[in-house]
Amino acid sequence: MATVKLWTDEEVSVNPRVKAIFDDIRATRKSDFVNNFWRALANQPQLLERTWSSVKQVMVEPGVLDPLVKELIYIAVSTINSCSYCTHSHTAAARSKGMTEEQYAELLAIVGMAAETNALANALQIPVDPEFTVE
Amino acid sequence: MATVKLWTDEEVSVNPRVKAIFDDIRATRKSDFVNNFWRALANQPQLLERTWSSVKQVMVEPGVLDPLVKELIYIAVSTINSCSYCTHSHTAAARSKGMTEEQYAELLAIVGMAAETNALANALQIPVDPEFTVE
Amino acid sequence: MATVKLWTDEEVSVNPRVKAIFDDIRATRKSDFVNNFWRALANQPQLLERTWSSVKQVMVEPGVLDPLVKELIYIAVSTINSCSYCTHSHTAAARSKGMTEEQYAELLAIVGMAAETNALANALQIPVDPEFTVE
Amino acid sequence: MATVKLWTDEEVSVNPRVKAIFDDIRATRKSDFVNNFWRALANQPQLLERTWSSVKQVMVEPGVLDPLVKELIYIAVSTINSCSYCTHSHTAAARSKGMTEEQYAELLAIVGMAAETNALANALQIPVDPEFTVE
Amino acid sequence: MATVKLWTDEEVSVNPRVKAIFDDIRATRKSDFVNNFWRALANQPQLLERTWSSVKQVMVEPGVLDPLVKELIYIAVSTINSCSYCTHSHTAAARSKGMTEEQYAELLAIVGMAAETNALANALQIPVDPEFTVE
Amino acid sequence: MATVKLWTDEEVSVNPRVKAIFDDIRATRKSDFVNNFWRALANQPQLLERTWSSVKQVMVEPGVLDPLVKELIYIAVSTINSCSYCTHSHTAAARSKGMTEEQYAELLAIVGMAAETNALANALQIPVDPEFTVE
Repeated sequence: MATVKLWTDEEVSVNPRVKAIFDDIRATRKSDFVNNFWRALANQPQLLERTWSSVKQVMVEPGVLDPLVKELIYIAVSTINSCSYCTHSHTAAARSKGMTEEQYAELLAIVGMAAETNALANALQIPVDPEFTVE
Repeated sequence: MATVKLWTDEEVSVNPRVKAIFDDIRATRKSDFVNNFWRALANQPQLLERTWSSVKQVMVEPGVLDPLVKELIYIAVSTINSCSYCTHSHTAAARSKGMTEEQYAELLAIVGMAAETNALANALQIPVDPEFTVE
Repeated sequence: MATVKLWTDEEVSVNPRVKAIFDDIRATRKSDFVNNFWRALANQPQLLERTWSSVKQVMVEPGVLDPLVKELIYIAVSTINSCSYCTHSHTAAARSKGMTEEQYAELLAIVGMAAETNALANALQIPVDPEFTVE
Repeated sequence: MATVKLWTDEEVSVNPRVKAIFDDIRATRKSDFVNNFWRALANQPQLLERTWSSVKQVMVEPGVLDPLVKELIYIAVSTINSCSYCTHSHTAAARSKGMTEEQYAELLAIVGMAAETNALANALQIPVDPEFTVE
Repeated sequence: MATVKLWTDEEVSVNPRVKAIFDDIRATRKSDFVNNFWRALANQPQLLERTWSSVKQVMVEPGVLDPLVKELIYIAVSTINSCSYCTHSHTAAARSKGMTEEQYAELLAIVGMAAETNALANALQIPVDPEFTVE
Repeated sequence: MATVKLWTDEEVSVNPRVKAIFDDIRATRKSDFVNNFWRALANQPQLLERTWSSVKQVMVEPGVLDPLVKELIYIAVSTINSCSYCTHSHTAAARSKGMTEEQYAELLAIVGMAAETNALANALQIPVDPEFTVE
């Protein structure tokens, strides 16, 4: 159903620019599996390179947030943006990083609750308390 | 600019049903400050009660996710829902729970990156890899 | 803060094409007040004409839904689209058509609840029951 | 395609906490059919309980809005949130509560029109008329 | 999976009001193919007429923007609204109007980048520079 | 109202990492004016660098799409994401690149129309025509 062709490993193998990124994805993730997101972006090599470079910097390189926490935030954003693909892929990623069913249940409760209070605050057009702003 | 009146402490004090919730908010948060969200919901006592009860269960009662992590997820949802009030209030809440500027910078990077890849996946209508689904 | 000029009555009076629409808005609504939405659209006369014609057909002409119910639905959509202007204008319109505080409280409860369950269903990527589809 | 297992009646039958909610859903709706939304939430019993309790209070208990009007509002929110599951389930619910094709056609016209004017107002960043605000 | 019946050519042929619109769609597009969007709207003849009339005015009649540019804008909106149907149909329409893979790659890059900076600006609640407003 | 401090030129001048980006923004745009978006991101130097680098690659470097067309697409995305800041800044940018009022009127018409048909297609859950998919 994609709007573009999904590249097979064979097609990747004969395009050095795309192959370099796929090789780095495999080496970075220590896994031979490359998911459809990258196989779709392979049609746009410059976008593929920039997107992978950013994902690597933001999600893979060590930072101050725990890798699992990063995935929980990613699921939250993907859910609200109604991105079926990203919700599936990052829920799977969170599980592979150790997300327990208890953690998942709390994530769902927070995302649902936030969506509800967002709707209420937007419906009521509540003015921001001065206590919350950075002067 | 609200679509409803924001209740003053004086108005709250003469409505026992609303006062009970405001008292519980103050006791639970160990603070006299009650922000405008609750002052707007005071017009709808049943909704006020149910919303506070849910917020208390989800955000205040101890769970398996760290209280600061819960706020980061709340900020992410509020940002994508374009809820100005909630983004302000939960960013302030995250800071009061110890969010550092480094943590905030990583949160922003993840939220921005997720929004970008969500848009790409939705534009390309990428099919979900079978590896990501629960059979 | 608009991205376009808001037309004054004086400016409208010297543009026959825009004046004709403003006259019809006033006659249809039996009120001299023309809100900023139309004063902004006055910069794009063709869009002004088409939009007013559609609003008149959908919201003003008699149909099978009650005029107040139409406004409640409009508020719901505007809230979820995070449209501050439309939320304000249609909440005011609903009140002018007799919306009680009890009805408003129920509307808010439904909109908030729907936003919450939408988030849960999107997070869980729940498959549609065959019972819900039209064959 | 769900991110969680959908519970069968057999699995529900051996979990008293989940069974109690399913029994109440069946009794409240006077129907043996329990849709996938609840079968997915069964994995998170506390969230299942709180969500059903809220849905029951908001959508089932008698209020000032007509049950069919409540469903129309629910469809509007679900459509704008791009929730495929909820749009299907609440359109089916509206039909089971008597929604005629004429009412559905008007709902669609309002939701489409509101989405269009929301986009225009957000694009033009139209300032709220003072007449629309609650002082 | 639709919530309404999709009209076949046979069903259209015996309904003069719907047939008139389908005939105009075919004549305007110089193609016998009528896509599912119109077959679904056929259930609501007034909405079908108004929607086709608007689409024809906005997307088909000559204007100052290039027809391909119009489609690129349509894809951008459909992507952010997470409309799977519209993203598919307008990406196909853009290709039929000559969109090259290079143009598509740039469109994707802009839509992704805009989604990212939108999220950052909304998270940071950045005040609008006075230089950007129309006085 | 921002959730972070907006950096003044004086503060920028004493931070070499931030100053390098601001210098490049000024040189690239051939203007001394640096808008608030970058003054807010100055708090997160790595995010500032990556975002500016991407914006420069996508929006400034010559490509196959006209610079004005790029801005029109950016306005469309920002409008649907309900990003007030970005809508203002990119509408101003489009005007500075020569957007006429006729072009702006057509952009508004397309964005509004697309939002309307997106809502209709999502409400009706219309299945994608096989003709629109890439096999």
